Amino acid sequence: MASLVEIADPADERLRDYVALRDVSLRRSLEAAQGLFIAEGEKIIRRAWQTGHLPRSLLLAPRWVPGLRDLLDTSDVPVYVVSERLAEQITGFHVHRGALGAFERRPARQMSELLDARRLVVCEDIVDHTNVGAIIRCAAGLGWDGVLLAPRAADPLYRRAIKTSMGAVFSLPWARMDDWAHGLERLRDAGFLVAAMALRHDDVGIDEFAEQLDQHPRKVALLMGTEGAGLSSHWLAQAEVVVRIPMARGIDSLNVAAAAAIACHVLGPKIS
Amino acid sequence: MASLVEIADPADERLRDYVALRDVSLRRSLEAAQGLFIAEGEKIIRRAWQTGHLPRSLLLAPRWVPGLRDLLDTSDVPVYVVSERLAEQITGFHVHRGALGAFERRPARQMSELLDARRLVVCEDIVDHTNVGAIIRCAAGLGWDGVLLAPRAADPLYRRAIKTSMGAVFSLPWARMDDWAHGLERLRDAGFLVAAMALRHDDVGIDEFAEQLDQHPRKVALLMGTEGAGLSSHWLAQAEVVVRIPMARGIDSLNVAAAAAIACHVLGPKIS
Repeated sequence: MASLVEIADPADERLRDYVALRDVSLRRSLEAAQGLFIAEGEKIIRRAWQTGHLPRSLLLAPRWVPGLRDLLDTSDVPVYVVSERLAEQITGFHVHRGALGAFERRPARQMSELLDARRLVVCEDIVDHTNVGAIIRCAAGLGWDGVLLAPRAADPLYRRAIKTSMGAVFSLPWARMDDWAHGLERLRDAGFLVAAMALRHDDVGIDEFAEQLDQHPRKVALLMGTEGAGLSSHWLAQAEVVVRIPMARGIDSLNVAAAAAIACHVLGPKIS
Repeated sequence: MASLVEIADPADERLRDYVALRDVSLRRSLEAAQGLFIAEGEKIIRRAWQTGHLPRSLLLAPRWVPGLRDLLDTSDVPVYVVSERLAEQITGFHVHRGALGAFERRPARQMSELLDARRLVVCEDIVDHTNVGAIIRCAAGLGWDGVLLAPRAADPLYRRAIKTSMGAVFSLPWARMDDWAHGLERLRDAGFLVAAMALRHDDVGIDEFAEQLDQHPRKVALLMGTEGAGLSSHWLAQAEVVVRIPMARGIDSLNVAAAAAIACHVLGPKIS
């Protein structure tokens, strides 16, 4: 049974996992160094827990203790109970959901573990955490097998990515490519049709591409680039097919997460 | 030609349109009372300007003046030039893009002006500004004719909605329903097939629904509800068709903007 520890001193060392949650660069280095991630809100904390992630501690405002009581009763994780004001002081923002959990990161999956997949989204340099989280949520919801991230793409276990994914980052397999330059060769060698979401003189409309896949089934690795610059020319040049979502005149692009949603639905497995 | 006015005093009355941009409830009442909206970043400012919105003033850090020089040269709008630190002090956040514009709101479009549309998204109580902005961006990009908002849905001209929409809120027609209880009757009377994105025992998969529409073309008003609670039972009961996006087992829903992206693509006009 978890022990409830009331803390009133914002400088208490036991709260160090939770400092300055809005300071992205500080959190990035702190979380990597400590091997932790932060789950926010009861629902996300439950999903982290239920997918077997080990909690280091929880930080709760008093009114959030009852909601998590069933989990706490089965665990000896330290639970720090603080006022909402103190929570705000430590984390640097108003914690609406009043519940935070620090969890141990598990050893990262290797790219090789995803090569049996039939449908992979591959994010090149998507650095926005909410976009990475949204893409993982869509891929999971629409029956794709996993997500590969280029070395510079945002961390799916960063708090906001977890939140946007609604915890799908805990269940959908994802891995980081360690080699941007040669990663796509590995995908081709593993039998993937490497398809890029982009515009090019020889691009094909997404519905036409879906029909081709119906007639000639292939494993697909779908490359998505940043919203601003799109895919690098190095990656685009290696794509066997360039796939376009037809757009109304005068509009240049969709948000990358919206494009991923459409692609995962149109090119994904038939789910009834 | 616009006059550049350097301001060093954060309490200067001329900066009042720009105070506390992160304080949603304050901004909501201030912007409604003053009839203004805030555009953030050079690109969005240009789009507001080019779609005929009247600027009240601009707030620029010095390094952003040259980028907007062509616009400023053709206008006598007051341009307040402040240090980035002062901009942060006034607005309450670090203005990455260094350029803000306060524009006059135009008289709101009436719902009646959208009834000739063939494809409308209808947002019930979607209160998240980024979701409303993302839905409008998708609807515009995928060739839909407009967006209707229930009385409690978020304001498309709130700064973050504008930003997420990439300025599509300036070009895509949208209007607010003034009557939540009877709004859907008006849509039916205007010949719309009222379709709800939701789950119900008699729902139909979205691709099957698209085929039905191909065979029997209809005007479509597509209802989208909040992420948490979904559509109200009052609205859901009035839907002629309930449309489902098939999901993988164990996943309960997509983000509403992702669902809108899929629906706007699958049910939208054929764009080549």
